Amino acid sequence: MTERLEAQLAFLREADRLKTVLRASRLIDDSRHENSAEHSWHIMLYALVLADQAGPDINIDRVLKMLLLHDLVEIDAGDSPIHGNVDHAAMAIKEAAAADRLFGLLPQDQCDAYRALWDEFESAASPDAQFAKAIDRFQPPIANLATGGGTWRGYAVTLEQMDQRVGQPVSRGAPGLWQWLRPQLQKFFARI
Amino acid sequence: MTERLEAQLAFLREADRLKTVLRASRLIDDSRHENSAEHSWHIMLYALVLADQAGPDINIDRVLKMLLLHDLVEIDAGDSPIHGNVDHAAMAIKEAAAADRLFGLLPQDQCDAYRALWDEFESAASPDAQFAKAIDRFQPPIANLATGGGTWRGYAVTLEQMDQRVGQPVSRGAPGLWQWLRPQLQKFFARI
Ligand SMILES: [Ca+2]
Repeated sequence: MTERLEAQLAFLREADRLKTVLRASRLIDDSRHENSAEHSWHIMLYALVLADQAGPDINIDRVLKMLLLHDLVEIDAGDSPIHGNVDHAAMAIKEAAAADRLFGLLPQDQCDAYRALWDEFESAASPDAQFAKAIDRFQPPIANLATGGGTWRGYAVTLEQMDQRVGQPVSRGAPGLWQWLRPQLQKFFARI
Repeated sequence: MTERLEAQLAFLREADRLKTVLRASRLIDDSRHENSAEHSWHIMLYALVLADQAGPDINIDRVLKMLLLHDLVEIDAGDSPIHGNVDHAAMAIKEAAAADRLFGLLPQDQCDAYRALWDEFESAASPDAQFAKAIDRFQPPIANLATGGGTWRGYAVTLEQMDQRVGQPVSRGAPGLWQWLRPQLQKFFARI
């Protein structure tokens, strides 16, 4: 039991580093960049509160666990900004190696279970994963709309890019949220 | 439905402010203070990974939701350091008012459900809440042990205080964790 607990604590201590991974997005008060740990907390809150936007097949408890774990790989691989110029194939390899190392710190049963959940999220392979991905993509536009554009300005984002990068995953996993968001985006991007 | 969603989004935007509430504790890399949003994420991860330390009556999904919500009141009430000189009665009144305001931003059904979960956590009124509290108290000592004392040094904490402030809630909700932690603390406090 002690050996198991030591392995679990090694993982939990290592996880502390997610608090130092900075994202492109900023806090709504514009004081600083958001980090991936607090982002993970926030999108779990989004998922819980907006669970009524998910389809009837969704298990919100699994969704929350997916979102709790989904960004851990960024400890090794860093965050890839959605509007940045990212080599997605290279990033997928880096993230898989990160998942090997990080989940590998855990006892085997937990390593296997969390890795399966992360793989499911990454591949958007289930309704749960599709809702989780929708929520992950829905939160940053809410912050950007609240702050007069936020990261959209720095990356010179267009409405067409938003339709593709945000509209596709959000409308797939949470169509009601996209229906609400699209007119807000249209209004915003018409002004800039 | 749109009115419901607008209320939910008002709550979720307001929740962003938890990222700016600083705790006494510091990150393990000692780069800065920890904030309450990333702390909430981290203890959810602790609860998930250490769920086998909970009693058989525990519903880990409820525990995770409790921990997701438990610190939101700090947006209005601030964090009360466990080793600080806090007027607990005054703080309880401030936190209840914060819960009224923050959960009150939500649609009534969600306001009631989350408030009930927060009350259950605050009063440690169930095995789920006792495990959640144990985890909330177990994470900071892990960080302090990893950083040569951390907040214990600034607050001149003693082993007797740890037995009371950490030992009581941790041994109540997760006795195996206290059994592991106590000798580590004894060793640490014998050296300073
Ligand atoms: Ca991400």
